[in-house]
Amino acid sequence: MLEIQGIAVSDGISFAKAYCLKDPDLSIEKVTVLDIQEELERFKTARGKAKKELQEIYEIALVKFGADKAAIFAAHLLVLEDPEMIAAAESKIVSGMNAEYALDEVANMYIEMFEGIDNIYLQERVADIRDVSKRILGHLLGIEMVDMNRLTSDVVIVAADLTPSMTAMLDTKYVKGFITDIGGKTSHSAILARTLEIPAVVGTKSATQVIQQGTPIILDGTNGKIIVNPTSEVLNFYKQQHKQHIAAYEELLQYRSMASFSADGCAIEIAGNIGKPEDVDMVLNAGGDGVGLFRTEFLYMGRQELPSEEEQFQAYKNVLEKMQGKPTIVRTLDIGGDKHLPYLKLPAEMNPFLGYRAIRISLTQHDIFREQLRALLRAGVYGHLKIMFPMIATLDEFLRAKAILLEEQQHLKNNGYLVAENIEIGIMIEIPSAAIIADIFAKEVDFFSIGTNDLIQYTLAADRMNENVSYLYQPYHPAVLRLIKNVIVAAHQQGKWVGMCGEMAADEIAIPILLGLGLNEFSMSASSILKTRAHIAKLSKQQSKLHIERILLLSTADEVKEYVKRHLISP
Amino acid sequence: MLEIQGIAVSDGISFAKAYCLKDPDLSIEKVTVLDIQEELERFKTARGKAKKELQEIYEIALVKFGADKAAIFAAHLLVLEDPEMIAAAESKIVSGMNAEYALDEVANMYIEMFEGIDNIYLQERVADIRDVSKRILGHLLGIEMVDMNRLTSDVVIVAADLTPSMTAMLDTKYVKGFITDIGGKTSHSAILARTLEIPAVVGTKSATQVIQQGTPIILDGTNGKIIVNPTSEVLNFYKQQHKQHIAAYEELLQYRSMASFSADGCAIEIAGNIGKPEDVDMVLNAGGDGVGLFRTEFLYMGRQELPSEEEQFQAYKNVLEKMQGKPTIVRTLDIGGDKHLPYLKLPAEMNPFLGYRAIRISLTQHDIFREQLRALLRAGVYGHLKIMFPMIATLDEFLRAKAILLEEQQHLKNNGYLVAENIEIGIMIEIPSAAIIADIFAKEVDFFSIGTNDLIQYTLAADRMNENVSYLYQPYHPAVLRLIKNVIVAAHQQGKWVGMCGEMAADEIAIPILLGLGLNEFSMSASSILKTRAHIAKLSKQQSKLHIERILLLSTADEVKEYVKRHLISP
Repeated sequence: MLEIQGIAVSDGISFAKAYCLKDPDLSIEKVTVLDIQEELERFKTARGKAKKELQEIYEIALVKFGADKAAIFAAHLLVLEDPEMIAAAESKIVSGMNAEYALDEVANMYIEMFEGIDNIYLQERVADIRDVSKRILGHLLGIEMVDMNRLTSDVVIVAADLTPSMTAMLDTKYVKGFITDIGGKTSHSAILARTLEIPAVVGTKSATQVIQQGTPIILDGTNGKIIVNPTSEVLNFYKQQHKQHIAAYEELLQYRSMASFSADGCAIEIAGNIGKPEDVDMVLNAGGDGVGLFRTEFLYMGRQELPSEEEQFQAYKNVLEKMQGKPTIVRTLDIGGDKHLPYLKLPAEMNPFLGYRAIRISLTQHDIFREQLRALLRAGVYGHLKIMFPMIATLDEFLRAKAILLEEQQHLKNNGYLVAENIEIGIMIEIPSAAIIADIFAKEVDFFSIGTNDLIQYTLAADRMNENVSYLYQPYHPAVLRLIKNVIVAAHQQGKWVGMCGEMAADEIAIPILLGLGLNEFSMSASSILKTRAHIAKLSKQQSKLHIERILLLSTADEVKEYVKRHLISP
Repeated sequence: MLEIQGIAVSDGISFAKAYCLKDPDLSIEKVTVLDIQEELERFKTARGKAKKELQEIYEIALVKFGADKAAIFAAHLLVLEDPEMIAAAESKIVSGMNAEYALDEVANMYIEMFEGIDNIYLQERVADIRDVSKRILGHLLGIEMVDMNRLTSDVVIVAADLTPSMTAMLDTKYVKGFITDIGGKTSHSAILARTLEIPAVVGTKSATQVIQQGTPIILDGTNGKIIVNPTSEVLNFYKQQHKQHIAAYEELLQYRSMASFSADGCAIEIAGNIGKPEDVDMVLNAGGDGVGLFRTEFLYMGRQELPSEEEQFQAYKNVLEKMQGKPTIVRTLDIGGDKHLPYLKLPAEMNPFLGYRAIRISLTQHDIFREQLRALLRAGVYGHLKIMFPMIATLDEFLRAKAILLEEQQHLKNNGYLVAENIEIGIMIEIPSAAIIADIFAKEVDFFSIGTNDLIQYTLAADRMNENVSYLYQPYHPAVLRLIKNVIVAAHQQGKWVGMCGEMAADEIAIPILLGLGLNEFSMSASSILKTRAHIAKLSKQQSKLHIERILLLSTADEVKEYVKRHLISP
């Protein structure tokens, strides 16, 4: 038996045999070719095969992970078809070099060039170039690449790192977890593991060296532990743990058909965040009270041009119908920041999170905005639609956005369309300025939805994706809690309701505070709905309320955490 | 007479002859060289001359504009000595190409490569490469470049654009303004014009085509107008205007030796922001009551290694002595964000403004921080030193920074050094979280200094350097004003004082609000001190105070502006 410690990045326990992915031998030699035409043809054929593969992977990834994550393969396709790189390799072939060597030289030239520049975008591009050139090289050398479609029994993948294309091909029917040598909490493979809800441990440094193909493994994703060749005692211990896990989950299932109430009988709403229409099923399966955030970016990503009004209409209608009258809050396009659309030509920015994004784009590129609003208004007839605008910083922005919406509504009616009437129109509260003047906004909007992910990062001036400052991403910072309180009090004074659709809404420590503050709706990923409903069912809203003033006077996030644990959760 | 309209970027009126800068003819031919050794030598000599020139320019720029702006020539020197570029050009020369052509091909290759990538850092790099390669080319071709040291009478420079190296060489004795075809409010030349306090109009599109060498010109930098060959009537009109300008300035001079009071006799402090020790003279000349912000980055920039403790000690001592007991607030190192030090190897970041910077670096790289604190504590003996920490977001950060300071103080005393005692220790309020929990900070700090430039940009989540969202940089946004109020009230409740060192402190509209809120110290660039003192002398603090509550309930920045104009400034 051997125990390996790594970084825990995705919860759960798995029992399976190790499936080790070794990089295939792609070593190449420089050869002088005689038939240049034939060599050019070989190069073209290999690129063609790679392209076909990538398109397949892209489609699979689109279905499995959504447009957001599939975009990386769109990037690969761009690299594959980069005319500059192709021309550079072809000119080497024309001078008599074999295709393998020519490709390798060109790829390395670009990689060195990009690596020499201290820039995060280009670092990512390097990974793309590596991945694509390996793929073409494999075809040139006739080496069959790892094909995870051939799995026939449960495995835990062991690899130095998982390339994006590998992860996209993972067949979750048999892949029960994965282990990598490198990576951290926010690495690509970690995020994917959480999306797929399979356990994963990364950053083990040596897993690929010490784990043999086919060895039985226990993967404890919750604690970052890997047991290789476990003794029967250890195996039993973990089986026991696993059973408790399952039992706890099954206990949660009783909450699926229950309404959401606190222990002292106060009704709240627990809704789901969705990124694409299919996600609705997960929300409904978990018994969600509605959709608190429908991100509409999926419609725009991973494609070559804007979606048509009709296409959007169908997608929104589809979601609204499935929701069968439960409230469904759609957020208008939140592009920019870290989400780009190749066909929109957004400017490169020094600080994209403080840049031209979301409503700022909608209010300057009216056509896109109006098209989306028309599709929404028409789809609204098929369910309980609410609309909200992202990244509102000034009252002016909201008033302009709302005016455009009303204009389109009138326009549609004039043209004989059936449109939703009396739609609630709200805003995301994710910029400090909006939270601070919530009293002013509350007179104009129908509801607020607090987007804590961005609100926290702006309030503390810390990019949460940046590992050097991620310690400043503090949901319990008293300043964040005070802003939230300000928003809820302002809304209630005007008889409006407040939701929250950031990760904080499903946070065990934050929930009693939010409940005490009077938050009306908690929206989260479908997988957190049951746990949250069970958690709230055990909390007293009145009791929580009594502690709020004291909590808001605490000095640090740590003090808040301690206080909540001592007074609101444990007793 | 001819009138040209451009973009007004730097105030004032100038009367002088046009001095047109035309790009020299650097056209080259491809020649096969026979003596390769000699050609390599020519290339080396040209690079040597260019290097010598650049080093001179760098030194001049350092003195004239400070390390911050001189850094661009350090970047040029890096390009000039880039081993990859040199090797690429040399290998072309070795294959028989002439040095001019080889250099041009290599430069163009890099430029095309960087231009193809949608990234702002690389775009700047392109300008560097162009500037450097032109410089070397000039030497290879034996063409004398424009030499502005040969001016003997007043001129207004007319150019397509001013390269950074041209602007650095501008001799302000004779250069009375400049006009360019391209550029905007935030372009390099606009910023430099304001630093030099000479009028400038940019973005004229056609100035270089229509203005002849030596033509008399009136440059109205305030209104963005250029009059070519003015009639005597027009000339007289502008002379009149100019006279009024001068008269107004001379009237201001009477405030130089006055103390700073509001019309109703409330004392406040008007201090200066400085970036390097020499700036102290400007603050003293303007009769500043102290230094409200001494940025210490100058000591660290434009060099190859960290400054020693001794070097820092001398610089701080120098400033403190010159200030002769007037309060001098030194901000500890605020590096990161858009300010990098080549020798510190800071990480490349997606959103540097939300990244690893200022106190965040100081609290992880203790050595640098401790060295600066020691130098400050020792220098504190020579004047009235106060120390403040930048970018504080959590109480914890302040307590840790203060603990380190006290440790170093004790350590110095134990080692027999004379050190300043009872130094006031404060924090910058430039992150929303700190402004929101100012009541908690007020119990721990000795003072606050509100850094509005950053505070506004985080509160509205808009990078003010980004033209696409710069409309969201709203100092009068009610949320910003409420945060400022919160900070001042919290401080006064604990008997602490509050200053402001952002641009807002010298803003005509903001000043009556800040006065009414009870701000104790206004710190600004030396050139604004007299104007601000005169402005405040005409405002009643009590009167302003009466309007505050109403102002804080206004909905938008525009409403605030209107209100202040109507009720607080005009009456």
